[in-house]
Amino acid sequence: MKIVCSKSELNAGLNIVSKAVPSKTTMSILECILIDCTGGNIKLIANDMEFGIETVIPGTILEKGVVAYDANILVNLIKSLPDNDVTIETDADFNTSIICEKINFNKILSRSGDEFSYLPKVDMSNPVVLSKLTLKDVVRQTIFSISDNEANKMMGGELFEINGDNLRVVSLDGHRISIRIIKMKNAYNSMKVIIPGKTLNEISKIISGDDSDDVEIYFDKNHALFKFDDTTVVTRLIEGDYFKIDQMLSNEYETKMIVNKKELLSCISRATLLIKEGDKKPVIINIKDGIVNLSINSVAGSMNESIDITKEGKDLMIGFNPKFLIDALRVIDDENISIYLVNAKAPCFIRDDDNSYTYLVLPVNFTSAG
Amino acid sequence: MKIVCSKSELNAGLNIVSKAVPSKTTMSILECILIDCTGGNIKLIANDMEFGIETVIPGTILEKGVVAYDANILVNLIKSLPDNDVTIETDADFNTSIICEKINFNKILSRSGDEFSYLPKVDMSNPVVLSKLTLKDVVRQTIFSISDNEANKMMGGELFEINGDNLRVVSLDGHRISIRIIKMKNAYNSMKVIIPGKTLNEISKIISGDDSDDVEIYFDKNHALFKFDDTTVVTRLIEGDYFKIDQMLSNEYETKMIVNKKELLSCISRATLLIKEGDKKPVIINIKDGIVNLSINSVAGSMNESIDITKEGKDLMIGFNPKFLIDALRVIDDENISIYLVNAKAPCFIRDDDNSYTYLVLPVNFTSAG
Repeated sequence: MKIVCSKSELNAGLNIVSKAVPSKTTMSILECILIDCTGGNIKLIANDMEFGIETVIPGTILEKGVVAYDANILVNLIKSLPDNDVTIETDADFNTSIICEKINFNKILSRSGDEFSYLPKVDMSNPVVLSKLTLKDVVRQTIFSISDNEANKMMGGELFEINGDNLRVVSLDGHRISIRIIKMKNAYNSMKVIIPGKTLNEISKIISGDDSDDVEIYFDKNHALFKFDDTTVVTRLIEGDYFKIDQMLSNEYETKMIVNKKELLSCISRATLLIKEGDKKPVIINIKDGIVNLSINSVAGSMNESIDITKEGKDLMIGFNPKFLIDALRVIDDENISIYLVNAKAPCFIRDDDNSYTYLVLPVNFTSAG
Repeated sequence: MKIVCSKSELNAGLNIVSKAVPSKTTMSILECILIDCTGGNIKLIANDMEFGIETVIPGTILEKGVVAYDANILVNLIKSLPDNDVTIETDADFNTSIICEKINFNKILSRSGDEFSYLPKVDMSNPVVLSKLTLKDVVRQTIFSISDNEANKMMGGELFEINGDNLRVVSLDGHRISIRIIKMKNAYNSMKVIIPGKTLNEISKIISGDDSDDVEIYFDKNHALFKFDDTTVVTRLIEGDYFKIDQMLSNEYETKMIVNKKELLSCISRATLLIKEGDKKPVIINIKDGIVNLSINSVAGSMNESIDITKEGKDLMIGFNPKFLIDALRVIDDENISIYLVNAKAPCFIRDDDNSYTYLVLPVNFTSAG
């Protein structure tokens, strides 16, 4: 195989596919990036078996072929080169040379691509279309409440639920639920799939936050395929029925407070300074007319702080794991937010008026914990 | 004790003194920052027993006193506050409250300052004066070749040697020597001291790179005191006579090459991509008329690259630990550098014409290592 590409295009392509190279694996072929130019274009491929990425880069093919390279070495070598044409040549014995200007790398680790797993085929007839910005945003706004609990794989994924032109994205971890609802440009048949959180995380690192550019998503029984620019990402789906979340949601409330998001977030963040990691001290929220008082007690000291609010309904005192509130508040862009509560043992709902987001957080029992 | 300071001044002062709070210690008093306002000003002090820092911040003393606070908690709490006046109050039972706007921290960890070690007294009659920029630069340009070898404490320090208006700063680790010579504004009595590298590292983090502002340095038998702005740093000196480096230096050479520093640095950096950490593969430098060829061989592959040079004297092939060359090249600001060599077993010298810097690097035997 012999190809010539610009350093910058090659570097960009390698950065994309390297997201699917596992950091720890016992199968050395998974640590490789495959360059396949048997089909007339230059394809870079990596596959960690849960998801794989393929991208096509421009360049000249002087001799067709397919070769697997140690991902780490290839990525670092190419990154180090000056911005000029790079020639990669691998002979029949898998001796590879990489040449750029007066720089010669020789005998670079490479091997046959025979053992390499290509991306699974997915039927590409009916794409769901989202803007890159929308996909990136919705992942950022929900991904923090997945769980890496090995005993419950489903919590490690996000529900993508389509009904007409509505996309609902849900994640939960047993203590909280994050829900975002997006209006899409087109309507589709109803469908529910669970996409692994890891795949979504890596995809949102690769795609730009561009609102005018789209991602096409194709689904079949076991896989989802994301297509954007010259890149294809294929992931396994998580099997099974997702949690029945609708029965956990409720519009009833006894107390509603409207509060400045930034003030509330700074205050809770400050309170956490007194807690060491792993220490489960709750922040206690005391809602009264026109004012909310937040306090925390720990061995390192105590804090209390008041914030002006608009209140509706009953007074209420309730405790929360401060981290769960912080995670939700960080991804809400509204200046003022509404929090709905029932009593000290029922979950709170942070929700906007048109239900574009709902964050449910379970309270903690602060009489025993404090 | 009760004081009122602006958050920003308090925060800046805490950031300075916290550099002398050890990250690991079995003596809990060392994890504290002392606030001492018995003398009519507000002093913040930290002391890790090898070196200590004291800084004075503006503010109002409402009640005199001296209290030790857990450094980590105090620094983080103050950092989290809005930019406004902060009141710190500690009662006779060491109950501390910190108040800023509507924020109340209470019962913050604090204790008596009785066990706290103040900074040692140093005679402050004859300062050596350097600009902040000069001190910061000379530390950066030499500190990388100290050694943390516990068996030889002297290698963990830097020699500061004064002769008239000349300051020579030296560090060495058994494989290389870094020397910088600085012309000072004033002349002083001859003197040699060994300052711990850790202290120099922390001082250069605190001082700004300001050329118009000075640092005064005072020495006595066992300590050095650095004074700048409202801050004082006192460090122990390392006892003993420093290595006799003059007998290791030589102006004789058989080969001299003049090379573009940036090209040489990029080339050697690229070569190191093929070596795993701990792998002692040398970069082999082959100097000929008008050209130097650099090559490296490892299990991951090999590299070779040529750079145009100006050569004087004999051809030479010599091997080096690439890291040692990289460290020296990084801190040299000249566009072109001169490297002087004798043979494949003698050290090379990277040196400018007026001897303001000399970097000696020992070669490695590449026939056996390669």
